[in-house]
Amino acid sequence: MLVPEFKPDTNRWQRIGIEEAVFCYSKTVSQIESIVIDAKEDQRNLFLTRMSNAKYSELEGTIQSLIDYEAVAGTGIIGERPVVEESHDVAVVTAGTSDLSVAREAERTLQYHGFGSKSFYDVGVAGLWRILEVEQELRRFSVVIVVAGMDAALASVVGGLIPSVIIAVPTSVGYGVAEGGRSALESVLSSCAPGVTTVNIDNGYGAACAAIRALSAQYSQ
Amino acid sequence: MLVPEFKPDTNRWQRIGIEEAVFCYSKTVSQIESIVIDAKEDQRNLFLTRMSNAKYSELEGTIQSLIDYEAVAGTGIIGERPVVEESHDVAVVTAGTSDLSVAREAERTLQYHGFGSKSFYDVGVAGLWRILEVEQELRRFSVVIVVAGMDAALASVVGGLIPSVIIAVPTSVGYGVAEGGRSALESVLSSCAPGVTTVNIDNGYGAACAAIRALSAQYSQ
Amino acid sequence: MLVPEFKPDTNRWQRIGIEEAVFCYSKTVSQIESIVIDAKEDQRNLFLTRMSNAKYSELEGTIQSLIDYEAVAGTGIIGERPVVEESHDVAVVTAGTSDLSVAREAERTLQYHGFGSKSFYDVGVAGLWRILEVEQELRRFSVVIVVAGMDAALASVVGGLIPSVIIAVPTSVGYGVAEGGRSALESVLSSCAPGVTTVNIDNGYGAACAAIRALSAQYSQ
Amino acid sequence: MLVPEFKPDTNRWQRIGIEEAVFCYSKTVSQIESIVIDAKEDQRNLFLTRMSNAKYSELEGTIQSLIDYEAVAGTGIIGERPVVEESHDVAVVTAGTSDLSVAREAERTLQYHGFGSKSFYDVGVAGLWRILEVEQELRRFSVVIVVAGMDAALASVVGGLIPSVIIAVPTSVGYGVAEGGRSALESVLSSCAPGVTTVNIDNGYGAACAAIRALSAQYSQ
Amino acid sequence: MLVPEFKPDTNRWQRIGIEEAVFCYSKTVSQIESIVIDAKEDQRNLFLTRMSNAKYSELEGTIQSLIDYEAVAGTGIIGERPVVEESHDVAVVTAGTSDLSVAREAERTLQYHGFGSKSFYDVGVAGLWRILEVEQELRRFSVVIVVAGMDAALASVVGGLIPSVIIAVPTSVGYGVAEGGRSALESVLSSCAPGVTTVNIDNGYGAACAAIRALSAQYSQ
Amino acid sequence: MLVPEFKPDTNRWQRIGIEEAVFCYSKTVSQIESIVIDAKEDQRNLFLTRMSNAKYSELEGTIQSLIDYEAVAGTGIIGERPVVEESHDVAVVTAGTSDLSVAREAERTLQYHGFGSKSFYDVGVAGLWRILEVEQELRRFSVVIVVAGMDAALASVVGGLIPSVIIAVPTSVGYGVAEGGRSALESVLSSCAPGVTTVNIDNGYGAACAAIRALSAQYSQ
Amino acid sequence: MLVPEFKPDTNRWQRIGIEEAVFCYSKTVSQIESIVIDAKEDQRNLFLTRMSNAKYSELEGTIQSLIDYEAVAGTGIIGERPVVEESHDVAVVTAGTSDLSVAREAERTLQYHGFGSKSFYDVGVAGLWRILEVEQELRRFSVVIVVAGMDAALASVVGGLIPSVIIAVPTSVGYGVAEGGRSALESVLSSCAPGVTTVNIDNGYGAACAAIRALSAQYSQ
Amino acid sequence: MLVPEFKPDTNRWQRIGIEEAVFCYSKTVSQIESIVIDAKEDQRNLFLTRMSNAKYSELEGTIQSLIDYEAVAGTGIIGERPVVEESHDVAVVTAGTSDLSVAREAERTLQYHGFGSKSFYDVGVAGLWRILEVEQELRRFSVVIVVAGMDAALASVVGGLIPSVIIAVPTSVGYGVAEGGRSALESVLSSCAPGVTTVNIDNGYGAACAAIRALSAQYSQ
Repeated sequence: MLVPEFKPDTNRWQRIGIEEAVFCYSKTVSQIESIVIDAKEDQRNLFLTRMSNAKYSELEGTIQSLIDYEAVAGTGIIGERPVVEESHDVAVVTAGTSDLSVAREAERTLQYHGFGSKSFYDVGVAGLWRILEVEQELRRFSVVIVVAGMDAALASVVGGLIPSVIIAVPTSVGYGVAEGGRSALESVLSSCAPGVTTVNIDNGYGAACAAIRALSAQYSQ
Repeated sequence: MLVPEFKPDTNRWQRIGIEEAVFCYSKTVSQIESIVIDAKEDQRNLFLTRMSNAKYSELEGTIQSLIDYEAVAGTGIIGERPVVEESHDVAVVTAGTSDLSVAREAERTLQYHGFGSKSFYDVGVAGLWRILEVEQELRRFSVVIVVAGMDAALASVVGGLIPSVIIAVPTSVGYGVAEGGRSALESVLSSCAPGVTTVNIDNGYGAACAAIRALSAQYSQ
Repeated sequence: MLVPEFKPDTNRWQRIGIEEAVFCYSKTVSQIESIVIDAKEDQRNLFLTRMSNAKYSELEGTIQSLIDYEAVAGTGIIGERPVVEESHDVAVVTAGTSDLSVAREAERTLQYHGFGSKSFYDVGVAGLWRILEVEQELRRFSVVIVVAGMDAALASVVGGLIPSVIIAVPTSVGYGVAEGGRSALESVLSSCAPGVTTVNIDNGYGAACAAIRALSAQYSQ
Repeated sequence: MLVPEFKPDTNRWQRIGIEEAVFCYSKTVSQIESIVIDAKEDQRNLFLTRMSNAKYSELEGTIQSLIDYEAVAGTGIIGERPVVEESHDVAVVTAGTSDLSVAREAERTLQYHGFGSKSFYDVGVAGLWRILEVEQELRRFSVVIVVAGMDAALASVVGGLIPSVIIAVPTSVGYGVAEGGRSALESVLSSCAPGVTTVNIDNGYGAACAAIRALSAQYSQ
Repeated sequence: MLVPEFKPDTNRWQRIGIEEAVFCYSKTVSQIESIVIDAKEDQRNLFLTRMSNAKYSELEGTIQSLIDYEAVAGTGIIGERPVVEESHDVAVVTAGTSDLSVAREAERTLQYHGFGSKSFYDVGVAGLWRILEVEQELRRFSVVIVVAGMDAALASVVGGLIPSVIIAVPTSVGYGVAEGGRSALESVLSSCAPGVTTVNIDNGYGAACAAIRALSAQYSQ
Repeated sequence: MLVPEFKPDTNRWQRIGIEEAVFCYSKTVSQIESIVIDAKEDQRNLFLTRMSNAKYSELEGTIQSLIDYEAVAGTGIIGERPVVEESHDVAVVTAGTSDLSVAREAERTLQYHGFGSKSFYDVGVAGLWRILEVEQELRRFSVVIVVAGMDAALASVVGGLIPSVIIAVPTSVGYGVAEGGRSALESVLSSCAPGVTTVNIDNGYGAACAAIRALSAQYSQ
Repeated sequence: MLVPEFKPDTNRWQRIGIEEAVFCYSKTVSQIESIVIDAKEDQRNLFLTRMSNAKYSELEGTIQSLIDYEAVAGTGIIGERPVVEESHDVAVVTAGTSDLSVAREAERTLQYHGFGSKSFYDVGVAGLWRILEVEQELRRFSVVIVVAGMDAALASVVGGLIPSVIIAVPTSVGYGVAEGGRSALESVLSSCAPGVTTVNIDNGYGAACAAIRALSAQYSQ
Repeated sequence: MLVPEFKPDTNRWQRIGIEEAVFCYSKTVSQIESIVIDAKEDQRNLFLTRMSNAKYSELEGTIQSLIDYEAVAGTGIIGERPVVEESHDVAVVTAGTSDLSVAREAERTLQYHGFGSKSFYDVGVAGLWRILEVEQELRRFSVVIVVAGMDAALASVVGGLIPSVIIAVPTSVGYGVAEGGRSALESVLSSCAPGVTTVNIDNGYGAACAAIRALSAQYSQ
């Protein structure tokens, strides 16, 4: 047959502590189905990202039933690691309701790797009291993922308030100059708050992986 | 002679309430000198912008003595309108020390047109307490000019706190993605705070002119 | 349940004189429905933006009947403030027929906040007589919103003719280099007329909010 | 010797009616000197562009004396064609004083090819009366070159007023988004006036060549 | 009723020799229908651009029958000017088959204004013999419109071969860096052939209007 | 006096564990001198960044003697925190010799805050054996800062080899598309290795601050 | 009839050793059908690129049966050259499964011209062992085509390992800054490995043509 | 001492057939001197690129005397490989005189590796006869490097005429949209001639390395 099998990076978890994810966006339904079947046969866990509701609906029913799917996040989980003890390792903060799917992608990635998280949604700086209200609580998290589009000012404000690891995820929410997320990305890269890091636009999965690196470093101390 | 005279838009103040400024950046020393001499002969006021200290130093001594020059702002004034009664019409807020020259250009433009202003410098959101400390005082100004580079998060924070007219001036301070001021410009254009307007990067003169339009509208009520 | 409630910035009007708007573009039908129901239960007014006709049509009939919807503007209103006395506070000027939806978004935002406006549509500079014909009438408005795409030359021409507050809204009408509205945005930012301000591309809502800030400053004098 | 001789496109004038120009910007002083000497020996005419005053000053005195040099335009002429009868073929219109050097480059190129031109400087749309004042006179020119930076609104206004061939030259005058001339270029490309053409930023030479093409077509009718 | 009538620039033809076109891309079917009906009632000619086949099909049958529609060009004509005597005023040259619709838009615009044209399609420089084969014939046209996407090298080659007025139309044909037409646009703007002018990407209408300006200047000699 | 004092964010270290740095790039010599004097009088530590050798040389001798200056890094230190026990917390990896100054800025920032680091310079992937040679040693560091320009492929390779926190610093080394560092920045943002984070181009200071956030989280476990 | 025939560059193979391909993306179904029929009548071979499955399905059945179509590659072949003896001339290496269609376009282009190739799929550097595993085998190919999106680090790694001709094809796989393939393109252009060349984003056809040029040069030695 | 030694990729020639070059642009004079001394002591050959005449002049006289320096190319050679028999392997073609330094960098790189080349300078397509004149001669070279800025149309024309390996080097010659070389780069990437490859802007060294890869493949046949 023409199309080669998906070639998993089998020892990635052993090597870097992060499981390979299956990026479904540019894969066909039948490619995804055969990847799921392979994993089932090998009794391997599997994490699927960027699988739209429409694509999920096209999967065969038996395949669907193998997957713990969440439409908002566009992620599917087959198996997952046991939760680590300390359940609130990471705070996930969003500026607006529209950033929700990216935030959920991050949270599901953490969950799949056995890490808990707590959500602080809809606390953008246009109503500054919302983030100030939770400032003290946020300080208790060693890692804070800030999901924000448009001006992404929330990342700078959070970065100036608390000492935690700050991982910004600029989002593509918005129109005009904000379309596609460039304004948010450049805003977090030029943040006036020191030590704010970022990942690619809309990359909730990547932010969670960066959080896992930070948490793993802590637990191995 | 080859080079034509500078052709002033003589009735601009009568027409739109703003005096024409002489943009010195791309003019030669001798062009500026002849413009100043013409104004003196006609007993006209004159406002010069973007005149570097180096260029000012090259002007003839007699020309220099006609000009009230300020190096930080790069502006020169010959004559100015009497101060309007209410002396604190406009607040000029800056994020960092590096935004100073743009802020001063705005303040000098206001002064030349007879409007007062008060400065709130160095109140960037990395140390959020600085802007919160002056929030109540800022509410008393009908127009607030926010001068900020890099992520320009200050414009969004101020816009979310107070009801005044907000005119942002993104600045070209910074390096990497912030170089040239694009990140700051896009940040203020996509501000999550409603009704924040902006002018071109580093355009302190334009921000002051916009403020004058807003103030003129108020005084003519 | 997974998805959190919409968290309104409840005291925004008290704080800055502008109501929070619900940006419907990236919200699902069911999210919008539950936001409308909540508002109804709390007897709160509500302003919905960027709701396409298609999305509106998918709302339940009872929800639809609660909303004063206008398809051209893509806005929905539930309740609104009584009109302020002076009915023609703001002029809304457009260059071409294609800028209509952005202009209507601005006008509906003003209406929701109790401010009147008068429209001057289709007066682009390719037929310069059209804007010159209304120049004297335009001078009577303290705030002029100029909606224009492509070269957006109208904003500069209006800014050079009258002393009012000028808020430009570059639009994404056009193709080639004009696609997406960047050429119009950069044109208004580099306007040769002094004191022209701008908001994001297609941001009729933001222009109206800026107008409200200017009008509020006037009325509180 | 390492460096090859300059290889002129010897029959360009016979082929397309335009002489090759020597673009001096990226040539060394000695390269220019040997090009001039070669032309002198062959009794060929020569047109030099983008030669800064500094570079001209470094040329040997005997070479300098062969060149009719103009510093504002940065052009040098050795020989030129006799003036064609109708002396005012082309109007050269500029928005501001800063566009002068580009305008002069165009005028000198025309002169070298035997075509006259008339200058209309400093008639930008911020003071609209300036261009309206000369509208009737402009209509008499079959070709109008419009030199303008920043928003370049002048090109659209002129294009909407008169039927002549309109060749826009966007200039790099300006700062912020106008820096380098991109805003002006995109503005003229998206002009709302039909049939406005453009050449590269600051390309006064190219605009004149386009004018020569249009004039040649007329005279060969 | 909410939506204002389309406001034609009624004396454009008298003023600049070009008729206003109705840009249908961003107009609704009912807007187009009412524009056509108005023109019919006033016995005015009408030229419609960027009307897709899909949109044309949605028009009412009686409206359709009033329009001379051509799908490739996306243009509709109601009435047109009598053909001027010299039938081959303009050559329209294309690089590839994919540039056809833009070329046809130009040709139909010329036709509507009474000017003839001759097509030279599919003569891109990858097979250089194709353009060399027609070089002598092309020299006889006073205006040559070159329609080309991707590297748009054809415009430079033609510009270097013949003395005619050259109006390039970069097209959005292509993918990768050529997507949207920017590479073609920048290529023609930096053409090594002197006096090549350009209009916006895909703007066949604009190129024809520029040609009309050049032809009108010739005929009025 | 016109120019306001530098307004330090006095409790930044208490709040977020990072000291404010003085960005000298856009400050004058006299501004820097007065900042140093103030710090000395208050017996405060001080960290100066982006101070070129030229600017340092212009400082008064007594001021110079107060500063531990390093030209490669462009940083100055007045006082610093005692070294934390574990001396090799952070690895700083560079692709080429030209990335040195950015790497040193990071290392000096760490040193000022009491954290040690070890350098792995000149291990770019064009000679892949260089990074593979140190792979096992790198795994022992909880934080790895990767400084790389051009294609910045090193960040992806390191991210795929080891589980540590990876903070990339794209650098502006290079020419053509690599000029200014955009290619390197986009490369690390789209890294195929999961969980690689980045800071602004050339921002060695920011990378070190991000490392401090990660280390602080570990030590507070 | 309005639309002209497709004008083939008939002697391209004789001239440059590469057959003209029919780029179907912007052609209509009926245009493609008539091109196929013409080729059949003339007994010419034909290579069709960028023909989506959807477009292929719309072709008439008799036309379909003439074409050897492959959906993944989007290519169709009518006739082809006999395979040259040495069957493994070119290695085609991909970073991820999503790059498959571009890789297949290259392989089919080679096949059509009589050259063999061997595939090495899914060997991206996030799991570096995958490319190191095949390093020795890759050295045996005189030409290696590297297909990679996102950071395209694979091209630099391969370029640093082996002496073969390296032709990179950046792909548009990815989102955020990687969307459209610009990050991959700039990465390969700034590759730290010497002598890596590139073609346009997603241009598998072009990479194969470049490989054919290199192979032809070898065989003619 | 603070600054580490330059760490050569010692077996690069054995591995990939290309010697490492020392990129002098971002190195200090003393760094270069110590690199030269090290090479001398080890009796290693050395190739230095991007060394301006100014930087070369600052080297110590004894160091200078070790280097075969050429100012136009900015390259220095210490030792070189014996010339391979066939002396005219590569043709180097340039569009204009301004592309000379890039062409020379390529030629010197070839020379250092033992490969000959022949120059065809100043044959840009504005005077098409110049390239047609040498077409037959060019066909004899297995590799042709085309150095061209601005519209870089020469690469497409050459690619359409001859079957050789074509390596384009876009140059940064030019102003306006051509400034920095982006227009030339995008032009060659979207070349209508099949199988044209490119390297980074101004990267004469890289083009020569690509040529060496192609030649090595031929000679090892």
